[in-house]
Amino acid sequence: MAHIDLGNGLPGIRGLMAYRPETEKPLNQLAEALLRSDDNTLSRGDRELIGAYVSYLNDCFFCQNVHGALAQHYMHCRVEDIDAIKKDFSAAPVSPKLKSLLAIAGAVQKGGKQVTAALIEAARAQEATDREIHDTVLIAAAFCMFNRYVDGLGTWAPQDRQFYIDRAPQRAVEGYAGIDLHK
Amino acid sequence: MAHIDLGNGLPGIRGLMAYRPETEKPLNQLAEALLRSDDNTLSRGDRELIGAYVSYLNDCFFCQNVHGALAQHYMHCRVEDIDAIKKDFSAAPVSPKLKSLLAIAGAVQKGGKQVTAALIEAARAQEATDREIHDTVLIAAAFCMFNRYVDGLGTWAPQDRQFYIDRAPQRAVEGYAGIDLHK
Repeated sequence: MAHIDLGNGLPGIRGLMAYRPETEKPLNQLAEALLRSDDNTLSRGDRELIGAYVSYLNDCFFCQNVHGALAQHYMHCRVEDIDAIKKDFSAAPVSPKLKSLLAIAGAVQKGGKQVTAALIEAARAQEATDREIHDTVLIAAAFCMFNRYVDGLGTWAPQDRQFYIDRAPQRAVEGYAGIDLHK
Repeated sequence: MAHIDLGNGLPGIRGLMAYRPETEKPLNQLAEALLRSDDNTLSRGDRELIGAYVSYLNDCFFCQNVHGALAQHYMHCRVEDIDAIKKDFSAAPVSPKLKSLLAIAGAVQKGGKQVTAALIEAARAQEATDREIHDTVLIAAAFCMFNRYVDGLGTWAPQDRQFYIDRAPQRAVEGYAGIDLHK
């Protein structure tokens, strides 16, 4: 049960968003712009994976499963593949560029000043653009917010991971902006 | 100099926002809804103080000075008073309710799961409402994003603290949504 009375039975961030529509709107618009907008050279799968990885580092069960399932959906892979990337991306079959961006995201999770010039140079060496580096840092930073929001208010989360996998295709179609939180 | 070429000479988050207007809009709308909206039983000063305190804990010079100066402006106090609150709010002349909320914000800065039922109960004992607890958690979480965004991309910040104090009255009038980043 959440730390406060949300007046709804919705899980994770959905219960919080239904409770406080004034902040729901910009939060979902931020997620839409960062994770789903087509105007991006990072794929939707790459961006969801960065979010899932940071949520894993922050030990947020709800967010790492929602966004891990979306990454899995976009990348046409298995949940085990996403789990392997979260646990050790350096050994996983993802591109060197994505590895360099995940390293930046991992630094952001620890703190902004952990992003070193060497990490940026390593990403540039893999042809990451300034916009891709910008978006990686902001996605990682945004999940440090989302994760703290979800766990800081003690929200509940379905424990069956299949729940998240089953919902991912619908969320991929609907996106974040203007979603029906109660569906 | 920032880690990426922002194409502008603006400091802190303003340079990032001018670089990426698609994410600037929801970020500023979130700040407006959380920190400045009149529909809130927490004063603007209290809310800016929570943001400044979390930014201090995250060692983000730009954010703690921008929002510390705004708190100072709203609270009609001196910069030394804000610094004293940031360093040890328990010994500072702020209300017991605000102290209980700053304790929750400090827990959020460490991680969402650090917010214990005891911290929530302590805030309730000071008559903090569910909405006030919700907003405290989300403000603290949002600054964990803003701070990582600002420092993760290595932005520059004016070092003269008077710069922030001088700008606060104008920012208090203009708010966050629809601001002219170049002014």
